Amino acid sequence: MDAFFIPFPVSPELQVHRLPMDHPGDLSALAKLLDQGVLRAQDVLAVIGKTEGNGGVNDFTRGFFTQSLMALLGTRLGRAPQQLLQEIPCILSGGTEGVLSPHYVVFARAEAAPDALPGPALALGRALGPVMDAQDMGRWAQVRQVAAAVRTAMADARISGPADVGFVQVKCPFLTPSLAESASAAGRPLGCPDANRSMALSRAAGAFGVALALGELDDDPALEAALLGDFSLFSNRASISCGVEVQACEVVVLGHSAQWRGPLRLACAPMADALDLGAVSQVLAELGLHAQPQLGERDQARVAAAFVKCEPDRRGRVRGARHTMLGDTDINAQRHIRGAVGGLVAGVLGDGRIFVSGGAEHQGPDGGGLIAVIAEVAQP
Amino acid sequence: MDAFFIPFPVSPELQVHRLPMDHPGDLSALAKLLDQGVLRAQDVLAVIGKTEGNGGVNDFTRGFFTQSLMALLGTRLGRAPQQLLQEIPCILSGGTEGVLSPHYVVFARAEAAPDALPGPALALGRALGPVMDAQDMGRWAQVRQVAAAVRTAMADARISGPADVGFVQVKCPFLTPSLAESASAAGRPLGCPDANRSMALSRAAGAFGVALALGELDDDPALEAALLGDFSLFSNRASISCGVEVQACEVVVLGHSAQWRGPLRLACAPMADALDLGAVSQVLAELGLHAQPQLGERDQARVAAAFVKCEPDRRGRVRGARHTMLGDTDINAQRHIRGAVGGLVAGVLGDGRIFVSGGAEHQGPDGGGLIAVIAEVAQP
Amino acid sequence: MDAFFIPFPVSPELQVHRLPMDHPGDLSALAKLLDQGVLRAQDVLAVIGKTEGNGGVNDFTRGFFTQSLMALLGTRLGRAPQQLLQEIPCILSGGTEGVLSPHYVVFARAEAAPDALPGPALALGRALGPVMDAQDMGRWAQVRQVAAAVRTAMADARISGPADVGFVQVKCPFLTPSLAESASAAGRPLGCPDANRSMALSRAAGAFGVALALGELDDDPALEAALLGDFSLFSNRASISCGVEVQACEVVVLGHSAQWRGPLRLACAPMADALDLGAVSQVLAELGLHAQPQLGERDQARVAAAFVKCEPDRRGRVRGARHTMLGDTDINAQRHIRGAVGGLVAGVLGDGRIFVSGGAEHQGPDGGGLIAVIAEVAQP
Amino acid sequence: MDAFFIPFPVSPELQVHRLPMDHPGDLSALAKLLDQGVLRAQDVLAVIGKTEGNGGVNDFTRGFFTQSLMALLGTRLGRAPQQLLQEIPCILSGGTEGVLSPHYVVFARAEAAPDALPGPALALGRALGPVMDAQDMGRWAQVRQVAAAVRTAMADARISGPADVGFVQVKCPFLTPSLAESASAAGRPLGCPDANRSMALSRAAGAFGVALALGELDDDPALEAALLGDFSLFSNRASISCGVEVQACEVVVLGHSAQWRGPLRLACAPMADALDLGAVSQVLAELGLHAQPQLGERDQARVAAAFVKCEPDRRGRVRGARHTMLGDTDINAQRHIRGAVGGLVAGVLGDGRIFVSGGAEHQGPDGGGLIAVIAEVAQP
Repeated sequence: MDAFFIPFPVSPELQVHRLPMDHPGDLSALAKLLDQGVLRAQDVLAVIGKTEGNGGVNDFTRGFFTQSLMALLGTRLGRAPQQLLQEIPCILSGGTEGVLSPHYVVFARAEAAPDALPGPALALGRALGPVMDAQDMGRWAQVRQVAAAVRTAMADARISGPADVGFVQVKCPFLTPSLAESASAAGRPLGCPDANRSMALSRAAGAFGVALALGELDDDPALEAALLGDFSLFSNRASISCGVEVQACEVVVLGHSAQWRGPLRLACAPMADALDLGAVSQVLAELGLHAQPQLGERDQARVAAAFVKCEPDRRGRVRGARHTMLGDTDINAQRHIRGAVGGLVAGVLGDGRIFVSGGAEHQGPDGGGLIAVIAEVAQP
Repeated sequence: MDAFFIPFPVSPELQVHRLPMDHPGDLSALAKLLDQGVLRAQDVLAVIGKTEGNGGVNDFTRGFFTQSLMALLGTRLGRAPQQLLQEIPCILSGGTEGVLSPHYVVFARAEAAPDALPGPALALGRALGPVMDAQDMGRWAQVRQVAAAVRTAMADARISGPADVGFVQVKCPFLTPSLAESASAAGRPLGCPDANRSMALSRAAGAFGVALALGELDDDPALEAALLGDFSLFSNRASISCGVEVQACEVVVLGHSAQWRGPLRLACAPMADALDLGAVSQVLAELGLHAQPQLGERDQARVAAAFVKCEPDRRGRVRGARHTMLGDTDINAQRHIRGAVGGLVAGVLGDGRIFVSGGAEHQGPDGGGLIAVIAEVAQP
Repeated sequence: MDAFFIPFPVSPELQVHRLPMDHPGDLSALAKLLDQGVLRAQDVLAVIGKTEGNGGVNDFTRGFFTQSLMALLGTRLGRAPQQLLQEIPCILSGGTEGVLSPHYVVFARAEAAPDALPGPALALGRALGPVMDAQDMGRWAQVRQVAAAVRTAMADARISGPADVGFVQVKCPFLTPSLAESASAAGRPLGCPDANRSMALSRAAGAFGVALALGELDDDPALEAALLGDFSLFSNRASISCGVEVQACEVVVLGHSAQWRGPLRLACAPMADALDLGAVSQVLAELGLHAQPQLGERDQARVAAAFVKCEPDRRGRVRGARHTMLGDTDINAQRHIRGAVGGLVAGVLGDGRIFVSGGAEHQGPDGGGLIAVIAEVAQP
Repeated sequence: MDAFFIPFPVSPELQVHRLPMDHPGDLSALAKLLDQGVLRAQDVLAVIGKTEGNGGVNDFTRGFFTQSLMALLGTRLGRAPQQLLQEIPCILSGGTEGVLSPHYVVFARAEAAPDALPGPALALGRALGPVMDAQDMGRWAQVRQVAAAVRTAMADARISGPADVGFVQVKCPFLTPSLAESASAAGRPLGCPDANRSMALSRAAGAFGVALALGELDDDPALEAALLGDFSLFSNRASISCGVEVQACEVVVLGHSAQWRGPLRLACAPMADALDLGAVSQVLAELGLHAQPQLGERDQARVAAAFVKCEPDRRGRVRGARHTMLGDTDINAQRHIRGAVGGLVAGVLGDGRIFVSGGAEHQGPDGGGLIAVIAEVAQP
C-alpha cells in the first residue's frame, strides 16, 4: 500500500457507507455514491462485506465481487484493477444464511467538515505484510508478521496505543497444497497439509498476531504449540480470514484517535458462546444504544456497521444441549452457525445487514467469538 | 383416539417432559423416566419434537423417531405399535439448524398431587378427524373438518371456550400425487398437484380450520379463495404441519382449564417478522419471565417447552433488506429460516431446545409466525 | 450482432478450442492462445462452457466467467466489455458434478489454410432476436421469435437447410417476478409467475422454436398448450437455457455447410432416458469413432467437444426403478442428473470435459435428452 | 453368530433377492416374499443395501432400515430384534445419487432343489470378530482381526481357498471421540481423533485385513504405516464400511464353493479410476454377459446384484481433467462420486439398482475402486 498517494488529510474523518448489492457483481450502490459526489473514489481505504455464496473453498462470489469492485474503482481512478487489488483491502465473508443480507461496508477517509464533531473519533489504518514464506505459514513467524503489520496499521491510523484499538480485521495467506508442493520441490518439505487445517492454523496465527500487537499475549515462540491447541488464549479484538488470493497478510485496524473527527465510534466485546445475547447488549450500551429488547428506529439509524465472529462449538454442545452442526453432511457447520448467530444479532439490531463470519479460532472465547459495532454518537 | 381407555382423572395435571435424544432412534431418556416411575406409559397423551433431519420430503428422521417411540410404548403397554400410532399424536418437525437441539416434549396426564397448585392450569386435549377424502384436501371441507376436530379436542381438554385456548398443533394429510392418481382412476380427477403447493394448501386449510374454531374467521366457503391468497387472514394460535403418514387430521389443543391443576401455564403471541424479538419478550412477560435481555438461570428452569412457527418472507426482504433464502439452490429456505429464528429465540431463552417449524402460512402474520411458551408459574 | 464487423472469410474454417479453467474467473488458457497467436480475439464467435457453481438461480460463477471473458476480449480488442456482451454469445451451464470438469469451448472463425480439408464442414452461425416483451415469454410469440432467430443464424452460418443443422444452442429471457411487476404496473397483468415454472416455460418455448425452424413441428399457435403439457413433442437438436441476463433470444446454430472447410464434423442423437448408453455410441459411430466400450486414445484426441441435455425423469422412475432425485431437499435434482449422465457419457468418452446441462424440456424425449459431439474426421 | 442354529443344508443354494423399497422403513417387498413362502425368515444370512440418505455421519436411513428389518424378522422368527442384530449382518450404504435406486439384497441359504445346477456355485459365509479394543482400531491389530474373521467366514461358506473368494464385505467399528474419551479416562490416551480420519483408517485396516486373508499382502506390522500412506497396496476384492453401531468387525464373504449348487456366479474386477468402463465390461464378460454397449434385456434379467466401491480422486484430477468434488462445500465428495460412477455402471447394466459405496481406501487402485456382479449362468 506504499503506492497509495493521497495525502493524509489535515483533519480526517472516517466515512462508513453500508451498501446493498443485488448480486455479487452489483456495485451500483457505490457507483451511485461516486456519481453523486457523496464519496470520492480516491478516498476509499477498504471494503468489508458479505456476499451470498456458501462461504467455503468453492465460494466464488468473493472473487466476483472483488473483481467488480476493482473494475469500478479502476475506471473511476484511471488505474489498473490489478494494482488496486494490492492497495485497497477488500475483505469478504461469503454466506448470508437466514436473515443476513448481502451488503458491503465502504470505508473512506476525507477531510472533515469544519463543523464535524471533534475527536477522538473512529480511525482506520491499513498495512500489508511482506510476501509470506510457505514455511512460515501457521507458525510463530506468521504471528510476528501479523503483529508487525498491526502496529504499522495503527501508525497509519494515527492510533496512539493498543488501548485505542477497537477491532482488527486481517486476511492471511495459508499453506495450500500447491504451495506445499512448490516448497517440496525446492527441497524444503513441509508435510502434506490438510487445506482445512492449514486455513484454521493461519487464522489462529493471525489471531495470535493481533493479540501480540495489542498486548494480549506474550511474544513467546513456545506458544506456537497453543495454536489450535490452547483455546484459553485468544484476542478479544481480532477477526481473521484467510484466502488463496493473498500472498501477504492484509491488516485493517479500526480504533479511536484524537487526530480524527466526526460522529463515529466503535465498541467491541467477546461473545462467550453462540447464545451470548448479553454481549450484544453490552456493545450497544457502550455506544449509548439501548435495545429493549430491540433497538428502536432512531437507534437503528445510528448504527453504521456490525461485525461478528462465531464458531460452532467444537465440543458438540451449546449450554449443555447437543447441537448437530458439526456432523451435518448436507450443510457446512460454518453456514449453520452464521445463520444462528446472525439471527440472534439481527434480532437485537433489528437489521440483517451484519458481517457475520465463521472460523473464529482464538478470536474471542472458545465456542463463542466477538461482536463489534460502529455507530454515531447520539445527537445532543 | 376413541380406543384410549384411561379414565379421565378426577383432578388432572399436565406433565410436560422435555427430553434430549442422541439420534432419531434414541428414546432412552423416556425409557428412563418410565423405568423410574416418574411417568407412566399409559398417561402419555402426545409427543411433539424436533429431529435432526432436513425437514423436507426426504426427511426420514421423523418416521424413525415415531417408529422407535411406538415400539417403546408398545412394549411397555403390551400393545401393537401400529395401533398406538392411531392414538398418540406424535408431531415432529425435522431440522435442528444452528443452535437448535434435537429433543422431544412428552405430554402426560396424571392425577394431580393433593398439594398441586389449583387451576385454572395448563390443559391438553386431542382429537382425530375422519379419514379425509382426496377431493376435500386443501378445500373448505378440510377447514371445517379441522375446526370440528379442534372443538372436539377442546372438549377433551375440558377447555370451556376459545378464549382459553392457547396453542393448537395440527397434523393434516395432503393431496399427494398417488392420492391424485387414485382419485383420477376412480373417475374424479383433481388436477395434477404440485406436492409443495399441496402441502402448503393443506397447512393453510388447517390454519383456517383453527381460526374458525377459535372465532378468528367466519365459516364462509367463499374464503376458500383466500387460502394462500390473502395472507392478511390468519390464526394467531395455530401451528400446522402435514405429512404423508396421516389420513386424517390430528389435533392437539393446549390451553387453560379450571378442571386441571398444577404450576404450568402457556402464553402465545404472533411474530410480525423474522426479527420480532419483541414478541418473544412479550410471551415471556405474560408468564412472569423476564429476559434482560436473556432469561436468568432461575427463569430458564421454569420454562418447560417452546414452540415457534416461522417463514422466509416470500417478498424477498426482511425489514427492507434483501434476504437470499428463497433463491438458494444449496440450502432449502425452510432450513435457513429455522436456523435464523431459532438463533434469535434461543438467544432470549438461553436454550436451544425449541420446537421451530417452518411452513407458517396463515399461522401468524405474513412473513412472521408465532411463538408459544409453556412455563411454571413463579414459586411464591 | 449487427455490429460485428469482421468480414466473412472467403473460405472459413471453424476452430474449436476446449480449454480448462482453474476457477470461474480464470481465462488464462484463452489468454495464452491469444498471446501465442493460435487464435485471434476478433475471430471469436461464441463461447459455450461449464462452470463449477450449483447451476441454480444463485449460481454466480456464470456471471463471473462472463465478466472475466468480456474483460479479456475487451482489452485485446480495445472495445467495451459491455458491448461485446451483446455480440458474442457466452452460454454457460453451472454445475460440474462428479467427474465433470470445468471447461469452456471457444468457437472461432478464420480463413482456412490452403491445405484444409474441403467442405462440407462444421459451420457456426449466430443470431440475436429482438428484445422480448414480457407478455410474449413462454408463449407462441416466443416460439416464433426463436424460430426466426434460428433461421437467421442458419443464414449467418451459410447452412443451406434444416437437414444440415446439427445442434442449436439457445439462451432465452424468461418472465421474472420483476418483469411481471413492471407489466402489471403498466396495466398489463401477467399473473403471478413462479420463477421455476417461468424458466421451464421459456426453455420449452425455445425448444419449440428450434423445432419449428427445423421442420420438426408445425407453426400452430394451438400448440402453445403443449408447452410443458405434451412431452411427446420435442426437438432432437435443441439445447435451451435461460437467464436473467438476456433480454432477447441468443441463438448459436452448429451444422454443416459446403462453404466451410476443415476436419470438424458434428453428430447429434436423442437420448431416450438417463441410461441411454446406446445413443452415445451411435453419435460416436456416426463420427467414425469407436467405443469398445470406451474411446481409445487416438479417438479421444479427435473429439473436440461434447454437449448433453438431460432431465431427472419427472415420473420418479428410470426403467422402472425408483429414483430419489426429485424429492431430495439437500441436492437439487438438476445437480443429481448432471452428475449421473455426466458419469455415463464421460465413461464412454474417457473424458470429463463435457457440457452437461439439465432442464431438457422438449429437448429430446421426455425423461431423456440428447447428445451432440464434435470431432475431427479420421486422418487417412 | 454362534447362536445361529439353522443346520447347514446338505446341499445348499444361495438365494439372492434384490428388492425395492419405497422409503427406508419399507420392508414390504421382503414381507411379501416371506408371506408367499418364496423365502423363509430363518434362511436369511445377510442383507446388503442402499438407502436414500446422505451417506454421511448424520444419515439415519441406515439405522431406520436396520430397525425395520430386524423388527420384521423378529416378528417372523419370534425372536428379539436386538439379538438378530448380532446375528444377521445388515450392511447399508446411504446415498442413492442420480440414477441409483434404493434397494436391498437379501442373501438366504436353503436346501437346493434336486434339479439345481451342480456346483461350484455362489457361496456365502459370515463371521463376527471379537469386540474390538479402542487402542486396536486403525492399527495392525485390526488388520489381523479382520483377516481372522475373513478366514472364519470362508470356512463358514465352505470356500476352500483364497482363490475362490470373489468379494468380501466388511463393517468395522472405528475410534469415535467417545471411545477415545473412555480410553483416556481409563489412563490409555489415544490422541485426539478426527472422526473422518478415524473412519478412513478403519476402512484402510479392514481392506488390509481382507488382503492379508486373501494373500494379497504380507502379515508385516511395519505395513501399519502404509495405512492411508501407501495407496499402491490394496485388495482387489474388499469392500469396507464402518459404523458407530458395531463393536466388532462383521464379515460377509462371497465366493464359489463346490458344496453349493445353483445358477449364481460372481465376478469382481478392480476399477483403475472413475471412468474405468472397461472394468465393468470385463466383469460382465467373465459372467458371460455382453454389453454392446449396454446389456440386453435377457442379460439384464440374469443379473442378481451389483456392488461398486469408488472414490473421488484425492489428487483432484481424473485423467488429467480437474474435478471439483473435493472442494465442494455444498455437496459431499462421496455423494458426487457415487452419483457419477453410479451413472456409468447403471448405463452399462441398464439398471440403477446398484450398491455404490464411497470410501474406497485400499479397496482397488487409488482413485478407482472395484466392481462385483452376481449373475445367473446362461441357460443352455
